[in-house]
Amino acid sequence: MGDRSYPIYLGEGLLARAGELLKEAGCGAKIAVVTNPTVAGLYLKPLQETLKRAGFQVTSILLPDGEGHKNLKSVAAVYDQLIRARFDRGSCIAALGGGVIGDLAGFAAATFLRGVPYVQLPTTLLAQVDSSIGGKTGVNHRAGKNLIGAFYQPKTVVIDLAVLRTLPRRELLAGLAEVIKYGIIEEPDLFALLEEKLERMVALEPELLEEAVGASCAVKAKVVERDEREEDYRSVLNFGHTVGHALEAFTAFDKFLHGEAVAIGMAQAAAISVAQGLCDEGSRRRIELLLRRAELPTAIPAPIRGRDLVTKMEVDKKSAGGKIKFVLCEGIGKTRFFWLSPEEIAARLSASERR
Amino acid sequence: MGDRSYPIYLGEGLLARAGELLKEAGCGAKIAVVTNPTVAGLYLKPLQETLKRAGFQVTSILLPDGEGHKNLKSVAAVYDQLIRARFDRGSCIAALGGGVIGDLAGFAAATFLRGVPYVQLPTTLLAQVDSSIGGKTGVNHRAGKNLIGAFYQPKTVVIDLAVLRTLPRRELLAGLAEVIKYGIIEEPDLFALLEEKLERMVALEPELLEEAVGASCAVKAKVVERDEREEDYRSVLNFGHTVGHALEAFTAFDKFLHGEAVAIGMAQAAAISVAQGLCDEGSRRRIELLLRRAELPTAIPAPIRGRDLVTKMEVDKKSAGGKIKFVLCEGIGKTRFFWLSPEEIAARLSASERR
Repeated sequence: MGDRSYPIYLGEGLLARAGELLKEAGCGAKIAVVTNPTVAGLYLKPLQETLKRAGFQVTSILLPDGEGHKNLKSVAAVYDQLIRARFDRGSCIAALGGGVIGDLAGFAAATFLRGVPYVQLPTTLLAQVDSSIGGKTGVNHRAGKNLIGAFYQPKTVVIDLAVLRTLPRRELLAGLAEVIKYGIIEEPDLFALLEEKLERMVALEPELLEEAVGASCAVKAKVVERDEREEDYRSVLNFGHTVGHALEAFTAFDKFLHGEAVAIGMAQAAAISVAQGLCDEGSRRRIELLLRRAELPTAIPAPIRGRDLVTKMEVDKKSAGGKIKFVLCEGIGKTRFFWLSPEEIAARLSASERR
Repeated sequence: MGDRSYPIYLGEGLLARAGELLKEAGCGAKIAVVTNPTVAGLYLKPLQETLKRAGFQVTSILLPDGEGHKNLKSVAAVYDQLIRARFDRGSCIAALGGGVIGDLAGFAAATFLRGVPYVQLPTTLLAQVDSSIGGKTGVNHRAGKNLIGAFYQPKTVVIDLAVLRTLPRRELLAGLAEVIKYGIIEEPDLFALLEEKLERMVALEPELLEEAVGASCAVKAKVVERDEREEDYRSVLNFGHTVGHALEAFTAFDKFLHGEAVAIGMAQAAAISVAQGLCDEGSRRRIELLLRRAELPTAIPAPIRGRDLVTKMEVDKKSAGGKIKFVLCEGIGKTRFFWLSPEEIAARLSASERR
């Protein structure tokens, strides 16, 4: 991506070396670490130490935990503290946390002083394989997820696999949903690897983790490089997300973790792909089975019905002229776009409910 | 600027042709006109008509008047109405108004759905020659002007000179400050034209208006093309603005119009340029005289002192490592950058107070 290209570091114990890595990335004298109390309790102190040792002046900005706080109010709180720390255009924001922290800190970086540099230090599996890479930043609006945001690339992404050991099991599994997604959309080998060794990955076996996370990051980077601003191909990453986002919005972002909603969305998209004659039933079953082995949900839970999600889909960014670019799969490793209205999607979801 | 280039239309009566011009610019089916009650009373109805005739679905979003409302709260109000109008990524925002409306609507466009297209329909002289061109969008923070924003270029700028006839005289004169600035920083011929025919321009003589506004837009476009993201040269446009912005912030954005504060800033910058041995006293006098003929202020009014402005300068975007990139002039038509601390600037302002 020309001068917007950046390195992604992947390994065990990288957080302890963040000082030197951020120096290499060209961060200026001041760094503001944006994080939440849970992550701060685990990793803020050692991070501050490595940053100070590397000569940075460090400010820490703590935001409340959770998707419900990923809003303009939290961004305004970040601006206030950046101003108090006398941030200038050379100062740098470091996002230490999961997708919520990364999206929010990235959006603050994109819009403070019309753009300051930022780096991603993802601490959840979901953030490591997905949200920390690719420059999508943003916050939620009452009407839907990520409706406010900017495309703005970080200076570097530092993925420390060791932090996954403190990640709650439910969040680890939710992150796996996105790893499975990369297998479905682009990498049949990754999908097969998970089929073979899923339980060992959940047990955080280091080599397996590095292989699966590395393969996921590679798919993400390849797609973003080809279509940074989601003018066309990048939408492939939204496999499972049209229904997933709608489910999250319909349940006010507090019933499902993002990956759980996406797991349901992927199972439903696979079912629609079969109904559409695009995908064989065997592949659909492999998808559903792998999701279940990862203890992820695959059905829209009662009393929610497909038609409940219609209004939540209409304001989706992927909509254009009233239709939604819906991603279907052709077996494992290949996708196809379909333009469908929310009503058409709901009708197909209902059909799969009756099945 | 490659695929971010765009046409600027300049002439009498262009607003009545906005429908066809926006169609040419590639705007999608829906347009949201962002404006304020004053401008709406004068130009919204004819604009809606030309847009509807061209086949657009038009939504109108009215925001309260004035710099004091250029904040995140107003942007949030725009988001709400875009969602209500079921805006998608192909929909377009049209900013109908002065700099406040243009900056705010541009920032909403930059951040809604991670970026929707927008067009500028500037209705003040200041917006026509300055803020509508160049893609600087943003809103104010209590701590300073435009601290929150994005670089985001419009699809087109349509400058209808006829609207200046309804512009209050005070605002017309404030806009002239920026026209004078272009003369000082880049165009001695424009400066000389104003010296010769200022009163005829204030009387809105069409040919003169077209010549001066056209020359101003050309300087602005040239500078932005050379350095879109203000990495270096674009700062030349901040001549008079370091002190101007600080004055606006110190007086809570309600004593001076932007152009009036900039006029004071330019007169002060010229005086500092003389003290620095960069500018001859004759050129400084020409600058001061032209500003006065345009009925613009040139002195920092009591009881405000140079040192009062120090804290307002420190958070300036142009600051890096505690210094500010201050623009000085070498006579008429040439500038030079100096890195000064806020305290140094204040000391030099005090010296000019005592003079």
